[in-house]
Amino acid sequence: MAVPLLMSALPITDLSRLCLHTVTTKPWPLAVAAKNYAAAGLKGITVWRDSAQNHPDGIKDAGQLCRDEGLEIVSYVRGGFFTALDGAGRQAAIDDNKRIIDEAAALGAPLIVLVCGATPGQSLFTSRAQIAGGLAAVLPHARASGIKLGIEPLHPMYADSRCAVNSATQALDMALALKDDYIGVTIDVVHLWWDDRLQAEIARCGREGKLFSFHICDWKNQPCDMLNDRGLMGEGVINVPEIRGWIEQAGFRGFNEVEIFSNRYWSMDQGDFLKQIIAAYRTKS
Amino acid sequence: MAVPLLMSALPITDLSRLCLHTVTTKPWPLAVAAKNYAAAGLKGITVWRDSAQNHPDGIKDAGQLCRDEGLEIVSYVRGGFFTALDGAGRQAAIDDNKRIIDEAAALGAPLIVLVCGATPGQSLFTSRAQIAGGLAAVLPHARASGIKLGIEPLHPMYADSRCAVNSATQALDMALALKDDYIGVTIDVVHLWWDDRLQAEIARCGREGKLFSFHICDWKNQPCDMLNDRGLMGEGVINVPEIRGWIEQAGFRGFNEVEIFSNRYWSMDQGDFLKQIIAAYRTKS
Repeated sequence: MAVPLLMSALPITDLSRLCLHTVTTKPWPLAVAAKNYAAAGLKGITVWRDSAQNHPDGIKDAGQLCRDEGLEIVSYVRGGFFTALDGAGRQAAIDDNKRIIDEAAALGAPLIVLVCGATPGQSLFTSRAQIAGGLAAVLPHARASGIKLGIEPLHPMYADSRCAVNSATQALDMALALKDDYIGVTIDVVHLWWDDRLQAEIARCGREGKLFSFHICDWKNQPCDMLNDRGLMGEGVINVPEIRGWIEQAGFRGFNEVEIFSNRYWSMDQGDFLKQIIAAYRTKS
Repeated sequence: MAVPLLMSALPITDLSRLCLHTVTTKPWPLAVAAKNYAAAGLKGITVWRDSAQNHPDGIKDAGQLCRDEGLEIVSYVRGGFFTALDGAGRQAAIDDNKRIIDEAAALGAPLIVLVCGATPGQSLFTSRAQIAGGLAAVLPHARASGIKLGIEPLHPMYADSRCAVNSATQALDMALALKDDYIGVTIDVVHLWWDDRLQAEIARCGREGKLFSFHICDWKNQPCDMLNDRGLMGEGVINVPEIRGWIEQAGFRGFNEVEIFSNRYWSMDQGDFLKQIIAAYRTKS
């Protein structure tokens, strides 16, 4: 249980590295989100699949409208869910992930974030082996399409049915075992903040060239919902600047992506919420 | 990510190693719980502090009535909560834990299970250091009283405010660093089932003589409440017999303690619930 070294994160002086996930402002259709993000000074957008699919003019247009607003498309969310009790289910997941890769290419996103899957009634070890197998099956298509894949370890409370990869250690070991430049790791503070191995694993991701993306939000003290009660940075118990410092120390200079699932925030005026996000980003991230 | 070795648990042929936590049948006062557990053929009882304190004839009588029913008192639950933002708060926790040790001695319980504490706004590394300090402060009194202390690592979803010790690895490392025979580890399947280090850490606990107690229940697929929606063994996603096999392989021959917090089960007839527990114990544990 090594005490983490104190490393200062770079000061946040502007919004040049701020990216928002479209799910964060879920009530807004993609075109509205892109326009408002750009007007507020953001430079990055991560597009959720439903948000792209609901865009009436198709996925290529969805990508173009983001770029026309001056936004960089940081990632496409989400692929994965590779586990199933039978081979047909696992093949269907592989086929769907190939389609997701095609969608990311059409959108113009360089990275797909993966929620890898878990199947109740199946051991986590079996699920992890199926995930590695699914990744191996889609990686050639990802490489051919120029799209990277980020394994996102999810909080252990989602190990029942969403993701059998529950630590940065597991995600990085899996990425390394696949021996492919197109597979890496996505770090989200809300999933991993509790793990005393996190600083060391982020550093190892950096050394191995596997630190693909970085998500921020906060873990509220005793959330009222296991899925949709995430907090704004500074609202909960996570030291976001400390973890961002570890990420930067590992060599990462990409976007800080704000991904917040919150029934409370989705129910408020999204323009006011965007202002709150920017304030929290400037002072608490 | 080593795949666990398959180790068969000992067959459950009787109730000789079944222990119930009084909180599992919370609506029953201690005297009713003890009588009904014994009548159902159980041999062990773990007494919760509120259950003992609410016993009208005092804590010594609470212990005697359990023994008079032929029940072995397995542990007293719970001590801990050693963390606080100020020294006065930490001293108050140390004082309270000394009282809990006195209560366990009066009750006749050989072991106190600890929920170690976490303080929102304080880093987990600081909280862990405070926990180690609190344990060091109370261990002489525990040893003088002949009461062992079990560090129970809690699920990472409780790292915000209940327990900064979130893996068997951390709990065992902390217990070993304290260099005292009276401090060890309590393993609960619901807190640790997701951790790919669990089998190896249980084995290490066994080698080090630190495997003090073992709690069972189940993690329901997508529980509706983070605290009070635990499942009966077999109702969820945990392979309880597999983990029990690891525990026994590590040399543990103590009780299998059923600890279930469940608004659903607390609201039903507790006699019927006890029958369900016994059936689940016989066939799914």
